[in-house]
Amino acid sequence: MLKKWHSELAQMFDQMVEWRRHFHQYPELSFQEVETPRMIAEILEGFGIEVRRNVGGRGVVGKIYGAKPGKTIALRADFDALPIQDEKDVSYKSKVPGVMHACGHDGHTATLLAVAKVLQDNRDSISGNIVLLHQHAEEMSPGGAKAMIEDDCLEDVDVVYGAHLSSLSELGKYYYRPGYSQAAADAFEITIKGKGGHGSAPHETVDAIAIGTALVSQLQFIASRRVDPLNPVVLSIGSFHGGNAKNVIADTAVMTGTVRTLDKDLRLFMEEEIKLMTNEICESMQATCEINYIKGYPAVYNHEEEVEVFEKVIEDTLDKNMLVRSVPIMGAEDFSYYLLEKPGMFFHTGAKVSNGKAYPHHHPMFDFDERAMINAGKAFLSIVDNYVSSQVKENLAEPVL
Amino acid sequence: MLKKWHSELAQMFDQMVEWRRHFHQYPELSFQEVETPRMIAEILEGFGIEVRRNVGGRGVVGKIYGAKPGKTIALRADFDALPIQDEKDVSYKSKVPGVMHACGHDGHTATLLAVAKVLQDNRDSISGNIVLLHQHAEEMSPGGAKAMIEDDCLEDVDVVYGAHLSSLSELGKYYYRPGYSQAAADAFEITIKGKGGHGSAPHETVDAIAIGTALVSQLQFIASRRVDPLNPVVLSIGSFHGGNAKNVIADTAVMTGTVRTLDKDLRLFMEEEIKLMTNEICESMQATCEINYIKGYPAVYNHEEEVEVFEKVIEDTLDKNMLVRSVPIMGAEDFSYYLLEKPGMFFHTGAKVSNGKAYPHHHPMFDFDERAMINAGKAFLSIVDNYVSSQVKENLAEPVL
Amino acid sequence: MLKKWHSELAQMFDQMVEWRRHFHQYPELSFQEVETPRMIAEILEGFGIEVRRNVGGRGVVGKIYGAKPGKTIALRADFDALPIQDEKDVSYKSKVPGVMHACGHDGHTATLLAVAKVLQDNRDSISGNIVLLHQHAEEMSPGGAKAMIEDDCLEDVDVVYGAHLSSLSELGKYYYRPGYSQAAADAFEITIKGKGGHGSAPHETVDAIAIGTALVSQLQFIASRRVDPLNPVVLSIGSFHGGNAKNVIADTAVMTGTVRTLDKDLRLFMEEEIKLMTNEICESMQATCEINYIKGYPAVYNHEEEVEVFEKVIEDTLDKNMLVRSVPIMGAEDFSYYLLEKPGMFFHTGAKVSNGKAYPHHHPMFDFDERAMINAGKAFLSIVDNYVSSQVKENLAEPVL
Amino acid sequence: MLKKWHSELAQMFDQMVEWRRHFHQYPELSFQEVETPRMIAEILEGFGIEVRRNVGGRGVVGKIYGAKPGKTIALRADFDALPIQDEKDVSYKSKVPGVMHACGHDGHTATLLAVAKVLQDNRDSISGNIVLLHQHAEEMSPGGAKAMIEDDCLEDVDVVYGAHLSSLSELGKYYYRPGYSQAAADAFEITIKGKGGHGSAPHETVDAIAIGTALVSQLQFIASRRVDPLNPVVLSIGSFHGGNAKNVIADTAVMTGTVRTLDKDLRLFMEEEIKLMTNEICESMQATCEINYIKGYPAVYNHEEEVEVFEKVIEDTLDKNMLVRSVPIMGAEDFSYYLLEKPGMFFHTGAKVSNGKAYPHHHPMFDFDERAMINAGKAFLSIVDNYVSSQVKENLAEPVL
Repeated sequence: MLKKWHSELAQMFDQMVEWRRHFHQYPELSFQEVETPRMIAEILEGFGIEVRRNVGGRGVVGKIYGAKPGKTIALRADFDALPIQDEKDVSYKSKVPGVMHACGHDGHTATLLAVAKVLQDNRDSISGNIVLLHQHAEEMSPGGAKAMIEDDCLEDVDVVYGAHLSSLSELGKYYYRPGYSQAAADAFEITIKGKGGHGSAPHETVDAIAIGTALVSQLQFIASRRVDPLNPVVLSIGSFHGGNAKNVIADTAVMTGTVRTLDKDLRLFMEEEIKLMTNEICESMQATCEINYIKGYPAVYNHEEEVEVFEKVIEDTLDKNMLVRSVPIMGAEDFSYYLLEKPGMFFHTGAKVSNGKAYPHHHPMFDFDERAMINAGKAFLSIVDNYVSSQVKENLAEPVL
Repeated sequence: MLKKWHSELAQMFDQMVEWRRHFHQYPELSFQEVETPRMIAEILEGFGIEVRRNVGGRGVVGKIYGAKPGKTIALRADFDALPIQDEKDVSYKSKVPGVMHACGHDGHTATLLAVAKVLQDNRDSISGNIVLLHQHAEEMSPGGAKAMIEDDCLEDVDVVYGAHLSSLSELGKYYYRPGYSQAAADAFEITIKGKGGHGSAPHETVDAIAIGTALVSQLQFIASRRVDPLNPVVLSIGSFHGGNAKNVIADTAVMTGTVRTLDKDLRLFMEEEIKLMTNEICESMQATCEINYIKGYPAVYNHEEEVEVFEKVIEDTLDKNMLVRSVPIMGAEDFSYYLLEKPGMFFHTGAKVSNGKAYPHHHPMFDFDERAMINAGKAFLSIVDNYVSSQVKENLAEPVL
Repeated sequence: MLKKWHSELAQMFDQMVEWRRHFHQYPELSFQEVETPRMIAEILEGFGIEVRRNVGGRGVVGKIYGAKPGKTIALRADFDALPIQDEKDVSYKSKVPGVMHACGHDGHTATLLAVAKVLQDNRDSISGNIVLLHQHAEEMSPGGAKAMIEDDCLEDVDVVYGAHLSSLSELGKYYYRPGYSQAAADAFEITIKGKGGHGSAPHETVDAIAIGTALVSQLQFIASRRVDPLNPVVLSIGSFHGGNAKNVIADTAVMTGTVRTLDKDLRLFMEEEIKLMTNEICESMQATCEINYIKGYPAVYNHEEEVEVFEKVIEDTLDKNMLVRSVPIMGAEDFSYYLLEKPGMFFHTGAKVSNGKAYPHHHPMFDFDERAMINAGKAFLSIVDNYVSSQVKENLAEPVL
Repeated sequence: MLKKWHSELAQMFDQMVEWRRHFHQYPELSFQEVETPRMIAEILEGFGIEVRRNVGGRGVVGKIYGAKPGKTIALRADFDALPIQDEKDVSYKSKVPGVMHACGHDGHTATLLAVAKVLQDNRDSISGNIVLLHQHAEEMSPGGAKAMIEDDCLEDVDVVYGAHLSSLSELGKYYYRPGYSQAAADAFEITIKGKGGHGSAPHETVDAIAIGTALVSQLQFIASRRVDPLNPVVLSIGSFHGGNAKNVIADTAVMTGTVRTLDKDLRLFMEEEIKLMTNEICESMQATCEINYIKGYPAVYNHEEEVEVFEKVIEDTLDKNMLVRSVPIMGAEDFSYYLLEKPGMFFHTGAKVSNGKAYPHHHPMFDFDERAMINAGKAFLSIVDNYVSSQVKENLAEPVL
């Protein structure tokens, strides 16, 4: 049965490429997606799949009903693009200036569409249902996942899986890990308010730049001295702006930064420590401050049991050698919200190009080997098969007795 | 004789006020002065004074020839305005949006015009010459003084005096000191070049903000540890800019600052130390840097002998109690260039308003008591009298024999 | 066969406790061990085991010859104590003031002696040889392992295993991980040389404390900005000393610290970065420096294949639930040297006391549950059995045909 | 009259040298002076001068009664030595190991003894009294001056003068300034209390060294950013001590330092800012602290009127060219306490050796040109003459009419 599914998917390769390249040429920014979700919805409806539009804003949820009752499996693909100018010299280059699918979401979408077609075509042999989560706005906090969940996209779902293409990882492999696998990404904006004045009279001022720069140095103390070296953390200041003239002491300095953590206690600890240090350092030098601490996506936490299911189905139905347990990634992903609600896991599919230089995600030259879409799709089908065919197997087994 | 001069000047008060208020309503920015120098030249020529226009660019130099030979005394008044919006509610408020005489140069100009009239009217009793230095662009480095000197404005000059109105100092007093009295003002712009990257992967970057902020902290070491505490110095960072996003590590940070010193060896020392520290700190963290060190006006150094002349003439011809020896000022003044070429001195004339709040120079509400112009003018006349009447006195004395 | 071995070991429990408590009462510091190695050698010889004394200085190496040829398996136990005052209130408290077995090496030794007795008694059924590595001076760099290796203790050895008791980990469990499992521990001593002088005249000095303290702050930049957050590292300053008087600026400051890394490239990188930063920071403030960088034990790297052997034999011969894959430990261990020479692994045996409070290693109240020695010993026997009985099994299997 | 006094003093030069060299060979540390005050008292009594011993502990106060009533003039000389090993190769080298008159107090004492002799011999022509303040313990806070004042050494005194020899200043000159002339010297000891632990586990500790070193860096902010650059200040950390081992994070760090100020408001400001910053910085990193702020000698403030008297008498009775108005000195002097109670001034007498290298005060090779004692003594006599002979002059003048 699964062999047939895999085969049908493989036969859809040209279609997947066509879809993917279409999306690639017409990318849409997070929270501005209009044509992409319309096209997804139309394709799914064309397969005869029940579709709900504008889920959580711009999401599209399809539902495939198996012939018999069983578990409900959700599969997710995100479809937004990035504010980056496409600099590749290919026929399917982005036609939208300054906007580009530089993270592979076009491939995710094409993959899930093909998976949907295969499953819809084979729904008679399915005991259970499949929910297709076509998600908008993964690239921009607060993201589309949270809003789609609040709009009930996980209703009746038993388990949820998601996949990401990985342009620097080997084609033919799946990368994943149980537990924390992608970081929580929080951000902050700190405004230091001193008192301006002439550059030649510092004593009549409260020098916001001097205080802000001292704070930047001191904040590193938290990362290097207050945190377990085995508990990964990043605290980066992304911007610092203060003052307009060489000879005027600035009254205000504004800095922004990002904090990445895996462990959820550490996430809270970092927030507390950053706020404490900022307040005390400013007080120590007579300045005041405002701290806007912005909670971003939580860490992706893959559930042990679903990881084991994944490993088992890949080993049983594809190839054990495709499995690569890997270190966590400090980049964030709003798939984490689904995993706070339901069991499941998120994995990366190797998609490194075999000819030419491979570029990282978010790079103007980003591209991937489109054959990776087949691998991602086959993994999805194997996973679904595991859940929706299990009772079938039992049924089939009984006559043997 | 001097009594008569003082008296004639006092009678010109209404005219001085009229001139001053005209300039006040039509201020012109440094290096953009057109109408101001034209009007000055026309007024001087109206008095019958020989005028040279466009000296060193936009300066106006008048020359009064005494009846007999003698010393040549230069008097200087600057005439440019500042990019500040006038917020005073007075009839003579600036009519030019965003431009304002917020430093009293309008008063300096009116004063010197009146002094010129008195001296020109009395040239028959003068043994020597007077050079009137109406200078443009004092407020903006490289300033007008240097260019006017290069254009020979000090030709044949024996001694040079200048005066500044002081809005926060007591009316009826002169403030000055022998030796270093106003700071050299140098500036710098430091560009730190690291390597940008994602906020979650600091190890793949060279974090320009982290390095720049460390440098700001470390630069204070020079001021606090490397310099004699009795040798005044200020090192202020006026601006710091780096990065555009919370979660992207910046590849570049740019900071600008000002260095104020009195002592000329210290001035050189600061430049060397700042450059050394910047280079080494950047190297210590794998970044490169560019340092643009901009020499501004040198320190004003009042010559001992001319200060003594000043004290003597004020004591003899006005009032000893008007003299106030004061501490140096860390603000800069390009009168310093004249004093590198010729003996002379620079003093401040108290001009605090007696009713209402007094505002500092460069403040949108800045104003001064216009009677201070009489005091400044009288001091100029007393100084001139000392130099050009001395031989006259001797001459007068001769018949006695 | 192995069942018998395990059983014989368990019957030696009272003897193991007696040995352990004897060593506990007469601890000897690293590189000062005399009675401990003598007693070990005598016990082994008492079993009829061939012994080589003073290996690499103070080590004792026993060799058990199996009846038939086969692989040579090395097992290691360290036997030195620490300069800590025993504060426990027990009958076997240390009798040596200020010296204590506060890390469990007494237990390691007793365990390996019992294992040796069992193997020697059963040598007839062994195809291969067992090398008993009783090592001195694990607690103090450069350690005893390196010297013993240079003195050929690993001659003819095919594989090497070692174990450590763990006072805070659960009795009945083994803790271990493939790959890097314990950190490399390097140390440094930095001497900053400035120029002393009176506290009131900093400009005539080069303030070694100001420079040293700036360096301490700046060194954290390496840990927090230059290293992959997923690649654990610790850089701690352990001591800082400079100056003797409140009002005298110090000419010298001396700081010492430790650097812990797992990855061997990172280890080299840290050394380079610390040296670079120290030199440049000192230069930036006109000081000179001396850096003494002391390479300590390398990281313990457990070989994949031997870890798999370990997991298999525990699962097959004891209990799968005893296995706990754990995070790395930032503490160092000179067992790493053996693993640079031969395949092998190092594991920790849970030994937390069941009644009363458990104290960490190196604590004056440190103790462990002595039953853990049986677990450690059984694991050793299972490992040995795997290597030396495999051919026996094949041999035994043949007659069946 | 004064001519005679000067002449008598000059004739005592050999005696002054003998006294000075005796004191030089038998120096006594602050608060340990026994033989020095005894010898001073005996010499004064030998002149017939009334002496009070043990004033304020170890001080000696002599009183010379003039023949007629008049003002009471106090003159002060300090007599303690320093804990420095004399390294000069001279006949009068210190005979006390590790103790040395390295600041010229031996010369001060010899000078005042000779002055006392001259005045006592001429008391018949004096209208007023002279108080001789031979003070102990100037070199060590809390100093002898305060205790002597509390023991009424200034009773009935109208004006007080003091002098110091200066080994690096030109022989034949007096150096002084009106107003603040020597700094207040305060000290502090800061103990930072964190939590110790293993060097590989910073997150379980509160790293006292990391916090202390951050504080040292940050304290410079006060000196460089919070204080008027024209208001001299020094903040120096003299010692920093924390930790005993490379791989153990220290629980405590102790730093000491000195703060020098002239202005008394700034003195209070520095204390407040240092305490604030220390507390807040420690709080920002979870440590606690203890601050022991030790007020030392206040700043020496020379009274305008007495400085004018000094300038007038030197000009009138010695040589105007001997007068050098100089910058303040950041070193402290407990003569300041006398000037808080009575009008007066403190001046320095140039004493640079004419042959050989001149060494600074507190140097093991320190010495001075003994002829400076004559200059110091003559100045004292001229000052006394001014106060006690004034009425005499009037009296003398009357008969002329």
